[in-house]
Amino acid sequence: MTVASLARKSLLPALKSRFVHSYGSTLLRRSTIRLYSKAVPLTAETYSDKVKRDERYKKLDNADIEKFKAILQDENSLLQDAGDLEFFNEDWMRKYRGQSKLVLKPKTTEQVSEIIKYCNEQKLAVVPQGGNTGLVGGSIPVFDEIILSLASMNKIRSFDPVSGNLKCDAGVILENADNFLAEKGYIFPLDLGAKGSCHVGGVVATNAGGLRLLRYGSLHGSVLGLEAVLPDGTIYNSMHSLRKDNTGYDLKQLFIGSEGTIGIITGVSILCPARPQVFNVAFLAVNSFEAVQKVFVGARKELSEILSAFEFMDGNSQALAERHLGTDHPIESGKYPFYILIETSGSSKEHDDEKLETFLGNAMEEGLVEDGIIAQDETQLKNLWAWREQVPEASTIGGGVYKYDVSLPLKDLYGLVEAVNEKLDAQGLRDPEDESKPVVDAIGYGHLGDGNLHLNVAVREYSKVVENALEPFVYEWISSKKGSISAEHGLGFQKKNYIGYSKNDTEVAMIKQIKQHYDPNGILNPYKYV
Amino acid sequence: MTVASLARKSLLPALKSRFVHSYGSTLLRRSTIRLYSKAVPLTAETYSDKVKRDERYKKLDNADIEKFKAILQDENSLLQDAGDLEFFNEDWMRKYRGQSKLVLKPKTTEQVSEIIKYCNEQKLAVVPQGGNTGLVGGSIPVFDEIILSLASMNKIRSFDPVSGNLKCDAGVILENADNFLAEKGYIFPLDLGAKGSCHVGGVVATNAGGLRLLRYGSLHGSVLGLEAVLPDGTIYNSMHSLRKDNTGYDLKQLFIGSEGTIGIITGVSILCPARPQVFNVAFLAVNSFEAVQKVFVGARKELSEILSAFEFMDGNSQALAERHLGTDHPIESGKYPFYILIETSGSSKEHDDEKLETFLGNAMEEGLVEDGIIAQDETQLKNLWAWREQVPEASTIGGGVYKYDVSLPLKDLYGLVEAVNEKLDAQGLRDPEDESKPVVDAIGYGHLGDGNLHLNVAVREYSKVVENALEPFVYEWISSKKGSISAEHGLGFQKKNYIGYSKNDTEVAMIKQIKQHYDPNGILNPYKYV
Repeated sequence: MTVASLARKSLLPALKSRFVHSYGSTLLRRSTIRLYSKAVPLTAETYSDKVKRDERYKKLDNADIEKFKAILQDENSLLQDAGDLEFFNEDWMRKYRGQSKLVLKPKTTEQVSEIIKYCNEQKLAVVPQGGNTGLVGGSIPVFDEIILSLASMNKIRSFDPVSGNLKCDAGVILENADNFLAEKGYIFPLDLGAKGSCHVGGVVATNAGGLRLLRYGSLHGSVLGLEAVLPDGTIYNSMHSLRKDNTGYDLKQLFIGSEGTIGIITGVSILCPARPQVFNVAFLAVNSFEAVQKVFVGARKELSEILSAFEFMDGNSQALAERHLGTDHPIESGKYPFYILIETSGSSKEHDDEKLETFLGNAMEEGLVEDGIIAQDETQLKNLWAWREQVPEASTIGGGVYKYDVSLPLKDLYGLVEAVNEKLDAQGLRDPEDESKPVVDAIGYGHLGDGNLHLNVAVREYSKVVENALEPFVYEWISSKKGSISAEHGLGFQKKNYIGYSKNDTEVAMIKQIKQHYDPNGILNPYKYV
Repeated sequence: MTVASLARKSLLPALKSRFVHSYGSTLLRRSTIRLYSKAVPLTAETYSDKVKRDERYKKLDNADIEKFKAILQDENSLLQDAGDLEFFNEDWMRKYRGQSKLVLKPKTTEQVSEIIKYCNEQKLAVVPQGGNTGLVGGSIPVFDEIILSLASMNKIRSFDPVSGNLKCDAGVILENADNFLAEKGYIFPLDLGAKGSCHVGGVVATNAGGLRLLRYGSLHGSVLGLEAVLPDGTIYNSMHSLRKDNTGYDLKQLFIGSEGTIGIITGVSILCPARPQVFNVAFLAVNSFEAVQKVFVGARKELSEILSAFEFMDGNSQALAERHLGTDHPIESGKYPFYILIETSGSSKEHDDEKLETFLGNAMEEGLVEDGIIAQDETQLKNLWAWREQVPEASTIGGGVYKYDVSLPLKDLYGLVEAVNEKLDAQGLRDPEDESKPVVDAIGYGHLGDGNLHLNVAVREYSKVVENALEPFVYEWISSKKGSISAEHGLGFQKKNYIGYSKNDTEVAMIKQIKQHYDPNGILNPYKYV
């Protein structure tokens, strides 16, 4: 009897007594990453062949500074010191670096309005910035754009415990919003790895998807209202709190996912669901991507209304996570090509346990699942989630990472990772151990339940050779399967020139018309999006 | 011991054996209504003080007819006979009547495009029409606009059984789409009383909410892609099938709820959830609106993930339904001021039954519920739903109905119905029995779980006296509570001038800009919306 089949037979009874390694809070912050990285090259230099400073934008002068000081009325709301600017000029992945000389941190919507009105009149380009956790260079200036940070607008405005409607400033950190809601018995309808840094406004501006979209749907359904400052300084106050309101075009939808190109979101009104009373997490090992898909189809049918996350990770991603976390993997019976994390949440522990155990028992009986573990308490649950949530950071282990966040039909989802590794191998670029090769590994993981794959190419350095091997190859592959080149990360700077792989000419033209309609001077987040 | 408390004590054991009256299919179609109604007055005459024909629109001539014949290449796709036109010129409520001389029924998106391109060039006004089940006069011409019916575009285009993605023509009848999905184990994420007549495209164009929004969310979340013909004839092909796609502004959102004013929806791509394996329906009687709210808060917490509908009806609405259906009410122990219909749906009959019975047991124990019944089979379930779904038709029993579909904070929801009845009584306009009074009754019912009230004023005739008593009183009352004057029915002709009660000047101006942007000649659905 092999280890695998033994594990399969013994899983269910064994689950109850197994120990999940406890290593405390493993959510590293960007400061940890910085220690072992080199200086980030300037975006303007790295991409000098692709982008030039647009001379229609005015260069910042002293009169502008004085104007902003008069608007903000607080020395601390205006940063000009090189050291202070560094954080705001660099992205989380250390791939993009801008040259802004000024960060403005307004405290009110009116201040944002006055700033933007002035910038529009003066043709000063502006980059709105939330928690700066984006993955496509969208929140980083390319040249000398002024950075408008929402970090000082961080108040909860109101909460209605009957409807679950939360209204807050754009700069509230997602985790703070969720902690606030937890006390009231509610949950933010979105969760993602960067929750400790990202802003609610940024999440909406980028239409983030995250870990629980499968259960609570997209922000296009849950955002009830927005407040935004338009490029001419107009305050668009649409902070409604109604679940249904069919009076006119639903214009707030345009700002969800607009990446700060047609307005700066300053306030968010969102419908929050009641917090489930019981969570379960199972972590499974399977032998093929076909098995991953079969487990998913079964889970959606049998776990149905309690299924709240279905994440998959390939074996290579878990190998990186193991090196990164420095502890043994929770599945001890061997290495497997694929792992699955299933989360259920509901209102009855007894019912949920029964559904999950019946489902897993059947999946093992059918030979789909090789080994697995169910978290027995809150700590174990968090630790199992860490093996999924730590993958993005683990993939920077070599020093950098090329990230592709794509939607694909389920059957084609993992084919992209295989195709990329074949291509890298054919060019002799990849080796997990050999430090002389530029690429550590190409790994795949993501929100399988949403058809959303994260392809991360972990590299030892950013290089044109690797970039040329990856692009446009990756985009062409996705386009051939009618997928999306950006499922949830957005376009930003990285994908500005690639929208044509996911949208047709009519769609692109209509998108450009909307940008022109709202921002004829192009002052908001230039050189990006479309 | 009173009847009520006896009922409370005996409800749960009694539920199992009680018989729900079976009266077969009670879903009357509009043909039934027509028999007892007088001729519908022309909208142009009824509202001659408010609207005049816009002379910039060309009047139809023979050359136009010949052009349309050439495009459609089928005599049956073009209706000019007065008898044939009647259905298309009148609305379901028999409140609005247009004077169109031409109905076009294209069979392909290309035909729609050619027709609209020509109309735009010639300045011929067009009203797009789906199943003509709208409630605000949105699908009916006001003057001589050409009617473009989507009824002949009624094909399912594709279905993906792994993702649940349905793609279909706009003219597919909702019930047909749902029946098709049922065979595949899926469900359309929206249900409403008019499902036997309304079109999928019309549902999207009006952002219909319906009976299960509580569970499956709004169409802004579930529609994955659209195909629409713009006012200049451009085909906007955005029939994507991806759950996540962050490449550019989500322009399809503008068309959801645009009521045919900026484009004609010709195709819909929608994400359909797996069909629940078990449905339960409970029908409860309670003594106050406060109790209705308490039962709701409890249901959302205890039934949580299996709660799929929470509908309320006042006693007056059930009295009309009883007269309309001609059978005894399912709650036999007496008349109550409020009734609740709760639907649960899930994957385990045993678990769902247990949750529902525990919840109802607690609610009775607390004295919130006076009497109730749980459907024991599919027929009983449908019959209980009929007491809710028949209310709209029952409210036309006097000959006509003024319908207000509003969103309000939960605590204020029923206050509007009380305020309206007080006003009607103060003016001596209302009497359920006295045929000389213009108003039968003002009744309230709706989707409590969505904060959505339907206020129906059942009248014996449409009259200016009643209309003046109701408007703008109703809109002012809603505005004072920060509600919406149209939760799900839209603006159409009825509410064109009232958007200011729900949206501020900036919002209205931005909405008008979008209309101007896409339809500078104003050929699509004129005299309506904004």
